Amino acid sequence: MTQATTPAEDLILGLTRIVDLPGITAATGLPISPDDITAIIREAERYARELLWPNAQAADRHGAVYENGVVRVPPSYHEAYKGWVEGGWQGLAAPAEVNGIPVGGQELPQALWMAVSELVTSGDMAFSLCPLLTGGAIEALARFASPAQQEAWLPRLVSGEWTGTMCLTEPQAGSDLSQVRTKAEPDGTGGYRITGQKIYITFGDHDLTPNTLHLILARLPDAPPGTRGISLFAAPKVLPDGTANALRCGGIEKKLGIHAAPTCVMLFEGAEAQLVGEPNRGLAAMFAMMNAARLGVGVEGVAQGARALALAEAYAADRIQGGGPISRHPDVARMLAEMRAITLAGRLLALEAGAALDRARLAGASEARVALLTPIVKSWCTDRGVDVASLGIQVHGGMGFVEDTGAAQVLRDARIAPIYEGTNGIQAIDLVTRKLFRDGGAEMAAVIAEIRATDPRLAAAAEALERATAWMLDRGQRDAAAAQASAAAYLDAAGWTMGGWMLARAARADERYAPICAFYLARLLPRAAARLAEVEAADALLALLPAA
Amino acid sequence: MTQATTPAEDLILGLTRIVDLPGITAATGLPISPDDITAIIREAERYARELLWPNAQAADRHGAVYENGVVRVPPSYHEAYKGWVEGGWQGLAAPAEVNGIPVGGQELPQALWMAVSELVTSGDMAFSLCPLLTGGAIEALARFASPAQQEAWLPRLVSGEWTGTMCLTEPQAGSDLSQVRTKAEPDGTGGYRITGQKIYITFGDHDLTPNTLHLILARLPDAPPGTRGISLFAAPKVLPDGTANALRCGGIEKKLGIHAAPTCVMLFEGAEAQLVGEPNRGLAAMFAMMNAARLGVGVEGVAQGARALALAEAYAADRIQGGGPISRHPDVARMLAEMRAITLAGRLLALEAGAALDRARLAGASEARVALLTPIVKSWCTDRGVDVASLGIQVHGGMGFVEDTGAAQVLRDARIAPIYEGTNGIQAIDLVTRKLFRDGGAEMAAVIAEIRATDPRLAAAAEALERATAWMLDRGQRDAAAAQASAAAYLDAAGWTMGGWMLARAARADERYAPICAFYLARLLPRAAARLAEVEAADALLALLPAA
Repeated sequence: MTQATTPAEDLILGLTRIVDLPGITAATGLPISPDDITAIIREAERYARELLWPNAQAADRHGAVYENGVVRVPPSYHEAYKGWVEGGWQGLAAPAEVNGIPVGGQELPQALWMAVSELVTSGDMAFSLCPLLTGGAIEALARFASPAQQEAWLPRLVSGEWTGTMCLTEPQAGSDLSQVRTKAEPDGTGGYRITGQKIYITFGDHDLTPNTLHLILARLPDAPPGTRGISLFAAPKVLPDGTANALRCGGIEKKLGIHAAPTCVMLFEGAEAQLVGEPNRGLAAMFAMMNAARLGVGVEGVAQGARALALAEAYAADRIQGGGPISRHPDVARMLAEMRAITLAGRLLALEAGAALDRARLAGASEARVALLTPIVKSWCTDRGVDVASLGIQVHGGMGFVEDTGAAQVLRDARIAPIYEGTNGIQAIDLVTRKLFRDGGAEMAAVIAEIRATDPRLAAAAEALERATAWMLDRGQRDAAAAQASAAAYLDAAGWTMGGWMLARAARADERYAPICAFYLARLLPRAAARLAEVEAADALLALLPAA
Repeated sequence: MTQATTPAEDLILGLTRIVDLPGITAATGLPISPDDITAIIREAERYARELLWPNAQAADRHGAVYENGVVRVPPSYHEAYKGWVEGGWQGLAAPAEVNGIPVGGQELPQALWMAVSELVTSGDMAFSLCPLLTGGAIEALARFASPAQQEAWLPRLVSGEWTGTMCLTEPQAGSDLSQVRTKAEPDGTGGYRITGQKIYITFGDHDLTPNTLHLILARLPDAPPGTRGISLFAAPKVLPDGTANALRCGGIEKKLGIHAAPTCVMLFEGAEAQLVGEPNRGLAAMFAMMNAARLGVGVEGVAQGARALALAEAYAADRIQGGGPISRHPDVARMLAEMRAITLAGRLLALEAGAALDRARLAGASEARVALLTPIVKSWCTDRGVDVASLGIQVHGGMGFVEDTGAAQVLRDARIAPIYEGTNGIQAIDLVTRKLFRDGGAEMAAVIAEIRATDPRLAAAAEALERATAWMLDRGQRDAAAAQASAAAYLDAAGWTMGGWMLARAARADERYAPICAFYLARLLPRAAARLAEVEAADALLALLPAA
């Protein structure tokens, strides 16, 4: 492929010239220049290249180890985490102060944090989950915790001295959090005692830091049933007096991928905790935290695509068959071009969502844009991450199936992203029933208008998306089953279309992107039409459902 | 989903009423009745259910073990293989006699062998590879070996007393077998000594049988370079006098999946061997063997789809979220319906190819049909097997990523099928340059005519495939790079279209299949159009290729 650019170059172009982060921040107290952006991206690239890439395969082979009730991470993670803390990365987008309390963040835009996250996650996805979860905890506490709680916890989390977790899922409560049973009982002194079992707790225990703050969904004794009776609590692993809190890791899961990221069963056995925010309003707080996390998971899909592409490009350039490197064989070039085009589209779409979040937070714009884009970024980018990882294996031929090359690890790692932080099916229903129906499709119509104005090659796709949106608003609002039956196809089509929109903007900003844009529009964009054809065919699925 | 049928029921319907195996065999000396077919399929289902399904996850966890120069398979495989031999399964489609020598096969049709293979492979893919490879060796020896060789080896392979391997790949010779370097030197007594290293040899060593016959591609001393200088040899692990031959397993690969199937590095260190067939004609013999094996690999894709579906349906029926089993949630039902429709389409398409092979062999029909369908079955069914396995994980939510449910294993196992026996990219090029160009598209035109005549809902897809075929024959024959750039998309579109054709035939044969057929035609068939749009856009890819 000609004129390939690196992920860091794409991110710099995206932030400076496509989503215009300098422009978004210009009117705020914290303007960021293209040079600042370039310097930060280059430094993040260096960090990932030096401390993560070289050890990611060994870390996967080592895995997280659970022994004698405690979890150990791979040895290389200690140095990587030290570099993370010393570089001040955890505080990149965290607040500098909250309620007048300095907490140590740099208050840089979310879009920049997402760009940095992509580079770190490409370097080692399992490692990256620890800082990602801490970032979510910072987000929730900055918005919902009391000043005393913020003063006690935020500086430690923002510096990376402590890490944070999100304890939501229970065996009977996965996508349906109304079934949460973990109990919180007042201890009579203003605190609470948490009792219950949480599962799938990423970095629930580890030996990277001396303490971890667990954010936990639980029920107060008088709580109403369902989601309106869930509160948010925080419990440190180690109490302020230095003694261990009554919580422990009961074991870690044996998983398909992200082997070095411990996925813990967490047992709370009367753990001392504090209520965060108002009673029975925990789900709202958790969703605030999850929305940012969902964008972060979308970035994981992009990052694993980027990792798969880097490995495949290197292999294809070196592997000689039929008298030349296989990268010149048209069908291999086709796979590499698909990987490149899809990953770039996802990368830029994620930045667009991050910039929409920044426009809302920093420049007072409506939150409707980021709300609309979040489920699309989460699902489309993660589904594509799996596809691209699978293509990466295929480029390697037999070597791709052998674990030595690392190509197989990318697929194993990437496969979690469509599942956690709300399955992609849940995201699709969120897109349709929360984002589309609540504003009558107004924000989607605005995006479609922008797409149409960007490039005439997008006109047919924009029109098809408009028609499917109209179907959703008409039939879908009258018929919840039909809306859900077609939600995933609708989301996917929106993703393919918006991916083309981002590439068209890249091509306009820099002609080096014109060939890959043309490739995407000619060869990949037709997939949007295929998915949109599904939308209106909801009845073909509903006919298969048993009568209620 | 309503009116779901089991894989065995689908196979019986497919063999008896869709591809009409009784009709194909009626005029031969070995007619097979619908009752025979039903009895054999039911027995194969029972074998797989009793001896394979219960142990497949434990076998994966145990894996194949290489220690002290020998390979051991999981303990449960010994009983499973005993059942395989005692049931006479290995000889199902093998000849009864060759050149007047009784070799013990039952001479049943290939389509029936493929149906049995699907059930066995669903039960345990890693296990199934051993009999599959032996079947390939039987095929090659029955066609190319001398009567003395046939008498010495075929009865032992057909009974399952010995197993067989295919030793093709070398580190520098993967898709490009012209680079094979393994040497065969005459020993002066009519035999040969083989020296060289082969990789990716499935069941190259194991402890299931006392002996294994290796079929090996190697070069004679005076051989011309390239593919015209490759000959086929056979070397047993244990020589007729009971001593060990000079060959050994140098290690096994650590792979993404099929952990219980040893993938061996085989070292030939002057191993005693015999030439099979004519000197320098080894590739033709190997391809004869590989063509049947390619259909077998296509069946693996179907089988893993079936395994994924069985696990996902069971999980979705039991998992309660939001007040009911998730199988009733429309988006989960959507995933299950896609899995079911795609797997059924692949199942029937594989039988169609098997029946075409039987019509050629048993009833004197042209080989053009099976030649055309083979790369489509190999690629489309295996790509879909990966997709369906991934959907199966998604249905399980978080549990799908944890190895306990077995859903992750299906994806790990299924991922090899698009790679081996000729990568799917190689299949696509074979379809276009060997199958399409050689007869000027005549056989494809015949299939398209049949598709068009089957169901008016297939008319648009048939026309689009016809137009893309015309493009291939015009532009592709003038421009090899363009043909290769669009070959994979063309093959994929043909697969989606032919899948719809098979489901339409199923719906016509039995109305229980009408709803799933309608679902496929409305919601999945549009994917064919998306891929066909890619075909004519070859230039968008070629623009990315570096100038030669």
